[in-house]
Amino acid sequence: MNSPLENLINYMSRMPGLGKRSARRMALHLLKNREKLMIPLATSIIETAEKIQTCETCGNYDMMSPCNICSNVKRDHSLILVVEDVSDLWAMEKGGIYSGVYHILGGVLSAIDGVSPDKLNIKSLIERSADGTVKEVILATNATMEGQTTAHYLSQRLLESGVKTTRIAQGIPLGGELEYLDEGTLLTALNSRRDI
Amino acid sequence: MNSPLENLINYMSRMPGLGKRSARRMALHLLKNREKLMIPLATSIIETAEKIQTCETCGNYDMMSPCNICSNVKRDHSLILVVEDVSDLWAMEKGGIYSGVYHILGGVLSAIDGVSPDKLNIKSLIERSADGTVKEVILATNATMEGQTTAHYLSQRLLESGVKTTRIAQGIPLGGELEYLDEGTLLTALNSRRDI
Repeated sequence: MNSPLENLINYMSRMPGLGKRSARRMALHLLKNREKLMIPLATSIIETAEKIQTCETCGNYDMMSPCNICSNVKRDHSLILVVEDVSDLWAMEKGGIYSGVYHILGGVLSAIDGVSPDKLNIKSLIERSADGTVKEVILATNATMEGQTTAHYLSQRLLESGVKTTRIAQGIPLGGELEYLDEGTLLTALNSRRDI
Repeated sequence: MNSPLENLINYMSRMPGLGKRSARRMALHLLKNREKLMIPLATSIIETAEKIQTCETCGNYDMMSPCNICSNVKRDHSLILVVEDVSDLWAMEKGGIYSGVYHILGGVLSAIDGVSPDKLNIKSLIERSADGTVKEVILATNATMEGQTTAHYLSQRLLESGVKTTRIAQGIPLGGELEYLDEGTLLTALNSRRDI
């Protein structure tokens, strides 16, 4: 192996979920498709790096800031859905089931990874939630240990601004079969049972 | 989502083994690490595309052609090891167990994928093997269905040039436990048994 190719493999292997072996495979795949994939990919990375900004209001990625969701007057600006990452926003938007606005935390609290509250977009959330237009903040962090801890921490912090704070429901997913669900999910579903 | 980012995700998802979801994760990871990873990666892709050539003799990737293996007078040029891909050459070189030269086929014969003999570097192998200096061609394609078929086809074609043709051995891998090996491997190991 030789220097530029080795460098490329090193950079590739720093991508999430990629080991050295997959990085090598990708580098070779790129070299085999120089015109159709390798050059366009590099161009596309540079274009994205130049044009995509972080929305100053919610933390979403877009070509403009405020992003097209935050600047859309048709959306309900009294409702903020708090998510961990932009990919969660994409998941919600794909469904087209939510018409409020978002707030991207940029991660979750984690003692192990050294993520303290000041490393997440929490201060701006508190400020937004207290600006008078916001009626409800929905905490939609993942149902993982860190996601739950973060939701709990946020609910405490949001007491300051006196805004109504809710948490998305946990329970049996649509189409879920009891037999295949873990005990934690079953327990939560049982404890959160509702009258019908 | 918006155009440059969408394009990037599309290009990413054309990499081997990456689906739309992992491509999204990678694009977000790049955006989070613009200076440290995103820009260097794009630069590295372009540098590799510009500087890395395909060796005109063996098909290896290197900064020069003939590559540093083909132009190394200390290597045994009478011995050609035929592999499917550059990654196989890397695997052999990592071990430092082989001192001959290589020939990269660039794939395997496959009726399903429409890979016919003329799509692989077979013509150049036949020519090389008949140039008078080559004493032995070792077929080291993978032990998959396609790899075996390709090795068989090559052995037939190499009859023309009258060069000695061998196939790397198949059997139980080092440290392999019979209990965990498949029937095919066990059968091959049994049939290829040797006197001790």
